[in-house]
Amino acid sequence: MKRKLKMGMVGGGRDAFIGAVHRMAAWLDGKIELVAGALSSSASKSKQSGEDLGLDPSRVYGDYQTMVAAEAKLPPGERIDFVTIVTPNHAHFPVAKAFLEAGFNVVCDKPMTYNLDEARELRDLVKKSGKVFALTHNYTGYPMVKEAREMIRRGDLGKLLKVVAEYPQGWLIKPVDNWRTDPARAGAACCVGDIGTHAENLGRYITGLEIDELCADFTTFVSGRHLEDDAGMLLRYKGGARGILYASQISVGDENNINIRVYGTDASLEWHQEHPNELVVKYQEAPRKIFRRGNAYLSDVAKRFTRLPGGHPEAFIEAFANIYVEAARAIEAEVAGQPIPKDCDFPTVDDGVAGMAFIATAVESARKGSVWTKMKS
Amino acid sequence: MKRKLKMGMVGGGRDAFIGAVHRMAAWLDGKIELVAGALSSSASKSKQSGEDLGLDPSRVYGDYQTMVAAEAKLPPGERIDFVTIVTPNHAHFPVAKAFLEAGFNVVCDKPMTYNLDEARELRDLVKKSGKVFALTHNYTGYPMVKEAREMIRRGDLGKLLKVVAEYPQGWLIKPVDNWRTDPARAGAACCVGDIGTHAENLGRYITGLEIDELCADFTTFVSGRHLEDDAGMLLRYKGGARGILYASQISVGDENNINIRVYGTDASLEWHQEHPNELVVKYQEAPRKIFRRGNAYLSDVAKRFTRLPGGHPEAFIEAFANIYVEAARAIEAEVAGQPIPKDCDFPTVDDGVAGMAFIATAVESARKGSVWTKMKS
Amino acid sequence: MKRKLKMGMVGGGRDAFIGAVHRMAAWLDGKIELVAGALSSSASKSKQSGEDLGLDPSRVYGDYQTMVAAEAKLPPGERIDFVTIVTPNHAHFPVAKAFLEAGFNVVCDKPMTYNLDEARELRDLVKKSGKVFALTHNYTGYPMVKEAREMIRRGDLGKLLKVVAEYPQGWLIKPVDNWRTDPARAGAACCVGDIGTHAENLGRYITGLEIDELCADFTTFVSGRHLEDDAGMLLRYKGGARGILYASQISVGDENNINIRVYGTDASLEWHQEHPNELVVKYQEAPRKIFRRGNAYLSDVAKRFTRLPGGHPEAFIEAFANIYVEAARAIEAEVAGQPIPKDCDFPTVDDGVAGMAFIATAVESARKGSVWTKMKS
Amino acid sequence: MKRKLKMGMVGGGRDAFIGAVHRMAAWLDGKIELVAGALSSSASKSKQSGEDLGLDPSRVYGDYQTMVAAEAKLPPGERIDFVTIVTPNHAHFPVAKAFLEAGFNVVCDKPMTYNLDEARELRDLVKKSGKVFALTHNYTGYPMVKEAREMIRRGDLGKLLKVVAEYPQGWLIKPVDNWRTDPARAGAACCVGDIGTHAENLGRYITGLEIDELCADFTTFVSGRHLEDDAGMLLRYKGGARGILYASQISVGDENNINIRVYGTDASLEWHQEHPNELVVKYQEAPRKIFRRGNAYLSDVAKRFTRLPGGHPEAFIEAFANIYVEAARAIEAEVAGQPIPKDCDFPTVDDGVAGMAFIATAVESARKGSVWTKMKS
Repeated sequence: MKRKLKMGMVGGGRDAFIGAVHRMAAWLDGKIELVAGALSSSASKSKQSGEDLGLDPSRVYGDYQTMVAAEAKLPPGERIDFVTIVTPNHAHFPVAKAFLEAGFNVVCDKPMTYNLDEARELRDLVKKSGKVFALTHNYTGYPMVKEAREMIRRGDLGKLLKVVAEYPQGWLIKPVDNWRTDPARAGAACCVGDIGTHAENLGRYITGLEIDELCADFTTFVSGRHLEDDAGMLLRYKGGARGILYASQISVGDENNINIRVYGTDASLEWHQEHPNELVVKYQEAPRKIFRRGNAYLSDVAKRFTRLPGGHPEAFIEAFANIYVEAARAIEAEVAGQPIPKDCDFPTVDDGVAGMAFIATAVESARKGSVWTKMKS
Repeated sequence: MKRKLKMGMVGGGRDAFIGAVHRMAAWLDGKIELVAGALSSSASKSKQSGEDLGLDPSRVYGDYQTMVAAEAKLPPGERIDFVTIVTPNHAHFPVAKAFLEAGFNVVCDKPMTYNLDEARELRDLVKKSGKVFALTHNYTGYPMVKEAREMIRRGDLGKLLKVVAEYPQGWLIKPVDNWRTDPARAGAACCVGDIGTHAENLGRYITGLEIDELCADFTTFVSGRHLEDDAGMLLRYKGGARGILYASQISVGDENNINIRVYGTDASLEWHQEHPNELVVKYQEAPRKIFRRGNAYLSDVAKRFTRLPGGHPEAFIEAFANIYVEAARAIEAEVAGQPIPKDCDFPTVDDGVAGMAFIATAVESARKGSVWTKMKS
Repeated sequence: MKRKLKMGMVGGGRDAFIGAVHRMAAWLDGKIELVAGALSSSASKSKQSGEDLGLDPSRVYGDYQTMVAAEAKLPPGERIDFVTIVTPNHAHFPVAKAFLEAGFNVVCDKPMTYNLDEARELRDLVKKSGKVFALTHNYTGYPMVKEAREMIRRGDLGKLLKVVAEYPQGWLIKPVDNWRTDPARAGAACCVGDIGTHAENLGRYITGLEIDELCADFTTFVSGRHLEDDAGMLLRYKGGARGILYASQISVGDENNINIRVYGTDASLEWHQEHPNELVVKYQEAPRKIFRRGNAYLSDVAKRFTRLPGGHPEAFIEAFANIYVEAARAIEAEVAGQPIPKDCDFPTVDDGVAGMAFIATAVESARKGSVWTKMKS
Repeated sequence: MKRKLKMGMVGGGRDAFIGAVHRMAAWLDGKIELVAGALSSSASKSKQSGEDLGLDPSRVYGDYQTMVAAEAKLPPGERIDFVTIVTPNHAHFPVAKAFLEAGFNVVCDKPMTYNLDEARELRDLVKKSGKVFALTHNYTGYPMVKEAREMIRRGDLGKLLKVVAEYPQGWLIKPVDNWRTDPARAGAACCVGDIGTHAENLGRYITGLEIDELCADFTTFVSGRHLEDDAGMLLRYKGGARGILYASQISVGDENNINIRVYGTDASLEWHQEHPNELVVKYQEAPRKIFRRGNAYLSDVAKRFTRLPGGHPEAFIEAFANIYVEAARAIEAEVAGQPIPKDCDFPTVDDGVAGMAFIATAVESARKGSVWTKMKS
């Protein structure tokens, strides 16, 4: 299929960080074009943002309802092939629902919904619709994260014993006015919803382990804030592995320092976003190995998501774009009326449900005073 | 200006590494579209490559001469706004000359030409044409490289004493069939032309120092090869600073590990492509500082070339794209008949002449047996 | 005082790792000599070990009871000035008690005793005796650990919010026959007693914070083992700070990788034994700083414990020796009948009680199913 | 042999950095005791320094001539077994000569002598004497340096192609009054003599390669200084390998940052004193390996010089002590009238001659204007 996929966007107007990231990720490989949008909950800001982006003014909408109606009326090939949703959390569900029901494929930012009930409902909607739904848990797009998963799948680490996943950042050390700290827009959690879910998703993606129960302690360090800005958890996985997961938004000087360590009976691995092109593998009785992106010795899966030779580093945007590359493969198939390739590798609505279940479980454990709580689903 | 700039490409067909990089760099920010190309010296490969890229077949040309003639006949706004040249070195000059003379702006890969004479002639052509000419010494596009330059401009390091610039890589440890090792296509140098010029350019960009004379030792380690695959040099800069520069293509296990250290009377700095988001500054009587991309404390120039918050790493493609961002600013002005903004920050034809002079000087010093040789210009 | 202090040793015979460390630490600065010992619970092994060490055979004893009686009969200046106890945990208390009651100063390895009751009793014995008692929580001897403490004391980090302390190692991934895994000799905990206490002590030393309550999960991964080989804990400190502490002996490929991160409202710091000469300090709005041992800009306390210029690394033995340096200062004073200098900086019997209380509290929390448990004392 | 070896010291009094290092290195393993000294060229300072060290006043001498005469009169077993020379360079030769001629073994700091002629003469003296002479090129004492040598001996790197050795430090960025900058005491070179020889020795020790010719550029950056404070060199080894070596004392913020990279046809390695417990080995088609001190997978030679388990870092003093350990083994044999064990691993008088030849060759090349100059011997 040679024409570019047509993307619409809900949210992501001027000053919105994540919308710009989605656009760069979509554009990087030259296979997707942005053609329409309801770029802000403010109609005038949407219009201005559309101008910034050089969109045809007739396809810059004042709200998503107008957008979905108008795009649905356009002929196939002209109307959008999929919509990307980059609004605050509380709007994910209604927007996704509207577009799915109108027959559009969806790419959605995370966490997937406002709460677990919405997530379950969205899962049903997606399955019923037969449309593609991709969730941008972008860290799983890093080639060395994929290599890590492949190693574990192959059994290189032996039986998995322990997972330590962290996501510390510091920007909420000061009181800020941001929707992420507003329960009405963010949901039941701030830190755990915004970044804890990334740590959870990264751990699940790499290890394939499922959390059986967890014991969480939430803290709100900045006074006046209504949601937690720091959370620590002990995890017990099905099958006996143990875990520690923490997310923090008051860790002064840490900059989106998501990282993970996985320990097995035969070997251990660690990956840090600060050095995303490296995967460290440790052995009890052999030298450590540093696997580096862009090398011939890596697995096919890591190579498939690599654009540059070794030493020329790839980073966040390329990883994000890898989610789009795979979602685009699925969307192209869907648009063409073909079956979706089975090897498409992007986070799905099921990952979204798992993420919302994780949030709900952690919130419950913390509210009860760090009681071991069975993972919801 | 809202419409996207129209890019043509000479070279960069199937399997060409650097052409794909240029395209990603051009596409990343959504302001440039590829519309035409003579993508290979083989007409059939050019055609296939154009199909791969979804180009209108009528604008995929069998050779650059046909392309320049055909594009020149298209009306402004439809024809390409600039051409990107990503051929082997020996073709840079004739292609650039043809497009400049036909009134097109040019983006060109490095080293700029086949030899110094061509470089000087190209400089004259560019100045006479009034067109934009940008050379993709991409490492200068890294935000922390720009921060380094800004620190030195501000005087943070005091008087500069010493520069150590390295570019080791290992891929030529085996005999390979590649134009870079062919004197007929690469020019008088292999290692120094392909990567030594990057180290030279990086040092000049960051420090502003000019090499006064140099003393070079070239080695060809792989038998049967006609050009050097390793070179070491001692440098003396105007004003008294000293330098060491080396480039190597037989450094097994090094992966494009370009790096630079600059020492001054008050402080020193170092930057490594392996960790491109960090700039280390060292003092004799104070703690080391690690400046990290994406932070509020950086200079305006570093911020201007930053797309993501701290901790979310940016890398090679984003740096490469920063060259395109600035070239595009200049090209947009040129196309609009406006003066080119003075703060546009991309390598120019003068940088290209300096690079070719560096190669010619190093070759001469090495041929004479590592004799101190005054820098040509 | 010019003569060397005379050291006796209980434990530490052939093949005992920690005894050799204590001797090197004692000898390093040329102020302590080993003159006597009951070097093994086997009289013949004690004798052989004494020969290895060039000890006067008349002062190599078959058991500690004989040693304490014989040494006590020697005249001052000839008899030992202090005893170092490097036996398995269960013997610490009776040996320390015997020597204290006979009027000897004591240096003791950690954890201090077999259980908390013994620890409390030992505390009373030490206070009553007026003798010096030093506990070798050696990580607090690192100059950059002392710098960290000084920074926090000065208020550089603002109000402390969070502490993350880890001690992963991997050697118990296989079943081994070692007293540390034997409840009869190690006490109620294996991993938490052997290395968790180091993490606890390091955190307490650097931050001055006291744990209010903790919530622990213990795991025994290797079947047939009677004590935990992995433990994770959530901590709540008095004053509102939170913490995560984990210790693990099944973390394949980790090599005594003790490390700590402390987060405050103004800055954060981290220190890793893998890079002991560095202390990283992070800010939300300023470049990171790397404080490095051996520099003029450090605090007096770090300088006092530094032997070498910057760049010439110091490490484990030097840090261990710093405990001996300070204990020796105190012991010299005690022997001379002078008051013990108030600025002596070594872990005391109170630290030992705190460590045993930590173990007992963690064991109780884990046994109850990770229930928040108030810190014992 | 159970009694401790008796060490005398010439130089190393109060405030002398390197004397203190030698003493710690000698004491660390409990097999050497300091019993005599002429600790300063000032008799009164020698006396005070002897008091500081608790030496018997009758064996603290006002000058080395008195010392050698007096010690020679003492009976074997009471007199010193060897002397350690830690004076400024110009005094090494006469002191070594005096002690050798009086029948004493010698440990000497580097560079070995004031000039190459003295070095050659000393070599003859040593050979004639039959005594042990050890030179403290201490960096060769690091276990991972020994591992590097072993790897190369085994052929792990294939044929060696290139060596890059650096020793930057910054303390001479300011004018200082130190004997190292005084031609009358330091010799013909400052930077190259004091630290360049370490880089040369380290390269020779690890690789076994011999320099065939070199091309050097010396610079004196600090005005009023009579010797170079920075030097860069291109090297050509016998057999075709190439090298770059630089030493600098004006590299602001660098702290004795000696490091080396060795490139072969099959693999490359690098070692940095900043992380002395690691040895990085790089391959073109396999993951990098990090060999870490203290592990079972290392060679016997690395293990032989290791005191602590992995993860508990060893550093400068332990490496220095490893020179003493081996010198002591040789001296014990010499004292006992036995042949010196062939596997003793310490720098010899031949290494000293090589080092002085390196200095003389570099000085000559630099004086002639960076002319390729054949290595003297």
